[in-house]
Amino acid sequence: MGLREIKMERTRQLIADTAIALFSEQGFDATTIEQIAAAAEVGPRTVYRYYPTKEALVVRFTEDTLHTALDELRGLPEELPLPQALFQVVDSVRRTIEGDSERRKAVYRIIVRTRSLHAELRAVNWTWRENLAAEIRRRTGGRTTEVVAALAAANVAAVVEISIAEWARSEEPAALGLAIEQALELLRTGDVPTPTPV
Amino acid sequence: MGLREIKMERTRQLIADTAIALFSEQGFDATTIEQIAAAAEVGPRTVYRYYPTKEALVVRFTEDTLHTALDELRGLPEELPLPQALFQVVDSVRRTIEGDSERRKAVYRIIVRTRSLHAELRAVNWTWRENLAAEIRRRTGGRTTEVVAALAAANVAAVVEISIAEWARSEEPAALGLAIEQALELLRTGDVPTPTPV
Repeated sequence: MGLREIKMERTRQLIADTAIALFSEQGFDATTIEQIAAAAEVGPRTVYRYYPTKEALVVRFTEDTLHTALDELRGLPEELPLPQALFQVVDSVRRTIEGDSERRKAVYRIIVRTRSLHAELRAVNWTWRENLAAEIRRRTGGRTTEVVAALAAANVAAVVEISIAEWARSEEPAALGLAIEQALELLRTGDVPTPTPV
Repeated sequence: MGLREIKMERTRQLIADTAIALFSEQGFDATTIEQIAAAAEVGPRTVYRYYPTKEALVVRFTEDTLHTALDELRGLPEELPLPQALFQVVDSVRRTIEGDSERRKAVYRIIVRTRSLHAELRAVNWTWRENLAAEIRRRTGGRTTEVVAALAAANVAAVVEISIAEWARSEEPAALGLAIEQALELLRTGDVPTPTPV
């Protein structure tokens, strides 16, 4: 990274931090881009250059986390069995969140109480699940059927979503790792009730 | 149902049928409420009375299907084991769609190719999944933890979504039942790759 890039990344971080602090204090809907710019001591146009919408200031955290996890999967050796590769995906999400735990909890709480962010978040999750299914098929050279890949991706997405919700409810610092472990254990042992005909 | 209700329900059906036909022919975005009203030989205000937004004309089919399935679950005897009760949920969706197969396929195709409907559809699915998790906990008298209920609901939702996508790709009339059977079998036998640590 050159000096210019370092400076840009610092500004980007500063804007995001300021925005999350203001959203947490006074709510997402009541906070304007102008207020964020003033508090970060930059011009409103600088904020818009980094984040084209106010929603992007929040959703970006989820997007980055999920993109990083998918990138890690793409970088794993092809011969790694799929269950172990998928574990790396879930574990990447855990590492990203735990490396930035306090801010992530603030972000999560803003999302939960801001209706206007829900649709955007669901869109990000949905696209991710589709990309994950496509990557599963690519890795297995098409030996996995579309249905199996879609079910596997849905499982991974559900574990991530449900564990994050569990972690956000808890005050325990290790809660995310524990919630993931528990959810995966439940799925592996068949202890999740699955529709069964009479 | 009184005469008045019968007449209202018939108008409601006529408007929906006309709208789906127009959306299929000329696309969702290019079709106006005025065109739907003219083709159904009612006033635009009548259309708005039944369907407050153009999106509602499409999303209503999904909403009705999912609400019916959840209502059926609520009506099942408490002593029915959860896996069998959840099977009824999936089977209710299958019955609703198969009882109206051609129109449902048209609806599904409109949804897939219309970006402006995706967010609404995801919201409907999401809320349903949350209500399903709540009903699972209620039925089991809280013996099911929040995480187990959420994972079970996510499984049911994934099976429904993925089987419907499979059915829409196929020309086979029995495709939905087969896709559901296959997805459930995969989940029950543990043949869906699940994240596993090395």
